[in-house]
Amino acid sequence: MTDIVSVDPRTGAPVETVAQETTPEELDAACGAAAAAAAPLAGLGRAGRARLLRAMAAALEADRDTIVALADRETALGPTRLNGELTRTRYQFELFADAIEEGSYLEAVVDHAGDTPMGPRPDLRRMLLPIGPVAVFGASNFPLAFSVPGGDTVAALAAGCPVVVKAHPAHPATSQRCFAALAAGAAEAGAPEGTVAVVHGQEAGAALVRHPAIRAVGFTGSLRGGRALHDIAAGRPDPIPFYGELGSVNPLVVAPGAAAARAAEIAEGVRASFTMGAGQFCTKPGLVFVPAGEAGRAVTDALAEAVAGMPAGTLLSEGIRDGFGAGADRLAAAPGVRLLAEGTAPDGTGWNAPVRLLGADAAAVTAETAEECFGPLALVAAYTGEDDLRAALARVPGSLTATVIADDADTEFVAGIEPLLRERAGRIICNGYPTGVAVAWGMNHGGPWPAATNVLHTSVGVTSIRRFLRPMTWQNAPQGLLPDELRDTPAARVPRRVDGRLEV
Amino acid sequence: MTDIVSVDPRTGAPVETVAQETTPEELDAACGAAAAAAAPLAGLGRAGRARLLRAMAAALEADRDTIVALADRETALGPTRLNGELTRTRYQFELFADAIEEGSYLEAVVDHAGDTPMGPRPDLRRMLLPIGPVAVFGASNFPLAFSVPGGDTVAALAAGCPVVVKAHPAHPATSQRCFAALAAGAAEAGAPEGTVAVVHGQEAGAALVRHPAIRAVGFTGSLRGGRALHDIAAGRPDPIPFYGELGSVNPLVVAPGAAAARAAEIAEGVRASFTMGAGQFCTKPGLVFVPAGEAGRAVTDALAEAVAGMPAGTLLSEGIRDGFGAGADRLAAAPGVRLLAEGTAPDGTGWNAPVRLLGADAAAVTAETAEECFGPLALVAAYTGEDDLRAALARVPGSLTATVIADDADTEFVAGIEPLLRERAGRIICNGYPTGVAVAWGMNHGGPWPAATNVLHTSVGVTSIRRFLRPMTWQNAPQGLLPDELRDTPAARVPRRVDGRLEV
Repeated sequence: MTDIVSVDPRTGAPVETVAQETTPEELDAACGAAAAAAAPLAGLGRAGRARLLRAMAAALEADRDTIVALADRETALGPTRLNGELTRTRYQFELFADAIEEGSYLEAVVDHAGDTPMGPRPDLRRMLLPIGPVAVFGASNFPLAFSVPGGDTVAALAAGCPVVVKAHPAHPATSQRCFAALAAGAAEAGAPEGTVAVVHGQEAGAALVRHPAIRAVGFTGSLRGGRALHDIAAGRPDPIPFYGELGSVNPLVVAPGAAAARAAEIAEGVRASFTMGAGQFCTKPGLVFVPAGEAGRAVTDALAEAVAGMPAGTLLSEGIRDGFGAGADRLAAAPGVRLLAEGTAPDGTGWNAPVRLLGADAAAVTAETAEECFGPLALVAAYTGEDDLRAALARVPGSLTATVIADDADTEFVAGIEPLLRERAGRIICNGYPTGVAVAWGMNHGGPWPAATNVLHTSVGVTSIRRFLRPMTWQNAPQGLLPDELRDTPAARVPRRVDGRLEV
Repeated sequence: MTDIVSVDPRTGAPVETVAQETTPEELDAACGAAAAAAAPLAGLGRAGRARLLRAMAAALEADRDTIVALADRETALGPTRLNGELTRTRYQFELFADAIEEGSYLEAVVDHAGDTPMGPRPDLRRMLLPIGPVAVFGASNFPLAFSVPGGDTVAALAAGCPVVVKAHPAHPATSQRCFAALAAGAAEAGAPEGTVAVVHGQEAGAALVRHPAIRAVGFTGSLRGGRALHDIAAGRPDPIPFYGELGSVNPLVVAPGAAAARAAEIAEGVRASFTMGAGQFCTKPGLVFVPAGEAGRAVTDALAEAVAGMPAGTLLSEGIRDGFGAGADRLAAAPGVRLLAEGTAPDGTGWNAPVRLLGADAAAVTAETAEECFGPLALVAAYTGEDDLRAALARVPGSLTATVIADDADTEFVAGIEPLLRERAGRIICNGYPTGVAVAWGMNHGGPWPAATNVLHTSVGVTSIRRFLRPMTWQNAPQGLLPDELRDTPAARVPRRVDGRLEV
């Protein structure tokens, strides 16, 4: 038995033993319960699952103060951010409840029997069904919005899939407390036992991805850990989809006109974005392109000045603090890269680290120097004209976001680089900053590898539900055998495509 | 250099050398041309791509007689079937042209800036973009509908993705001739060079899946070959989606009432379905459950009698003929399995094989005996009550289809097994036969592993386009930077979700 211990990152001291590492027998039982829950959970129907999501949201809200206090003790992210994160999480449950009531996510199709140019067509009715039990890996940096509750869990439950969460070791107490709230919500809504479970420990995580009952995996974390789990999922006798978010440098381009017009404002925007939450956002702009010459230098100088005065940030765990230090040192020593500014040194208590700003010419941007360094660090790269910028952007690994700060004078410049940004990222932000990911129908939080392991899907927003659904067609089925949504006269109407025409 | 030779399966004799195996340099050039074509192909817009698809359909139609004659010489599938297949393929191009003009496949979303319970939301606009160059592996059994032209190629081109096809070695001349038609259609529609390419040879196929320019793979073929390519795709430095259809036994259940009422009719339906095209359909019902006892025996006896009188079928290639013989012998020797009937023995010319019917009790159905045997063979399994049937169905590997032949008296029986059929297959057919896959919005041609490598998608029907698209979000983008479909006043209206509401 190995203790799962809750540690305070502000002091580095262990606070309590929360649980034990999940044994293989316990893991098998949790997966078995999830498999057994799949049919009754789907059987709740859309209305029943909407009630479930709302009951879980209410249970989290009812325990808000304790959950936020625990999360703050385990992450040092502060009560303001964490209260906001809980509100976001509650909103996600409620937005998905609305979406499954509306029902368009089913992609329902009714093709009546008839003739076609290739011959007679039988009666075909198609909609999406839950894929089955889903494994979710909690993220270190969002203890409430991407952990036991949060994006992957809500999307899977909304789809009708039981969830087994592998808790992140940096916030086990928060994970257990949130699990209790979700379990209470599930019980109140009449959901089956096994609708949600939590497991602990790295070996349990790997075994979870291997378990025959698990049909898909949602993961947010490091490139190394994510790649290992991806390979396990792909190497199964029956490979399953692995939706991972593994790392993103999120290039931000300051256009020449904007740099010339408002260097100080841009420097402050970049500084706030890359140091928010001690730089521990998946959408942190870690690579900032500025024009070479006076205007760009003004942005860089203002940024360096601001960074030099910043206090050390508290990172989420010892491992993240150490990884940040090593990554920052490696980057600073890369050919052509130099240290521009460093914030106040840490005082030696807890998992603290100084803010760092590096500088380089765009030519020094490579797949290596453009790798994500998780924590409060950004590299400013000076580009000499659009060709230099384009060549550098083409070397940047796939990212969740790409940002352009531009003025009216930059319209042509932006139009020139936008196609390249589309290729390299999943979201393009104009005159804003990438940290802050709205939960909305219009969001995409994904992108080319390694930003996401599967570029087809988002992990934030309503359309993230598609990851946990699979299509099913009934051919010539009697009305009584069909799901309500596909019957000639459904009890609850949903948007459908009937004989080729979309009907809302 | 290794010759790519066209062989006549009716004689087993080589007819002509069609091409040489594609060299690594040629492969790299084809992939490079595809990558270069991606932006201009997307740039044609939906209207331009609809024109492209219709021009390709017209070019295939204009060359119908030669294409069908070549395909018949290389596959022995017969002109009736092959003319139907060409019509099907032409219809696919035209149906996808209509679908991209309609535009709902873009899943366009407009979220205007506004307040939400989690705070202010920026302006977010989301739609699907082409994923990039796609590799398509031609199938042996559909030289026109799943080969150089066909489902995967049409879906990828409709999405806006250039296609590099690995031609199937059993019909290289047909592949080259179809490629010429597609290239002529592309030229006529003003599509870029590199929109479609064909490569030959097993090594070229593996290298294609590894090539950095390729962003997704569509494959139809054997479990062994498909698994190897799947593993290459998953093992890349940047893994890419691999959409494979690897094998399916397609269980068919004859319910007790139906068996008692119409044994002869059912036997004829099953016989026609499992021997159609010499049993070389991915949806061939290879495993037929009948009730133990008199009614089921009547079905089995009628089936055995019909099979005994059938002529030998000509298979597509020497490898398929040999694989069928070995697989059939292995199955016949499995514990509890016996030979019920065998059709006329082949006369020794060409790649012929006798039709075979095997019998067993449902208890003898295992993952091994329920593995697909590609060719004219079916195993009839007698079940003793619903529990025996359910236990056997639970051991059947994932399939594309599951069929129930039932009468009114069987309503309760069917309702009892339907949830299990949903779990095991992607399409449920009531009182019909699984061979014959309509190209329609409502089709699903996919299912749990190994029927499909990715249970989320269909490879037939309009929604198969989703495999080759990825989402992109623009945040706070000026109107001029947005694709037309996301502008406030689009030139060509498409269905969109605006501020949460679906608008057709």
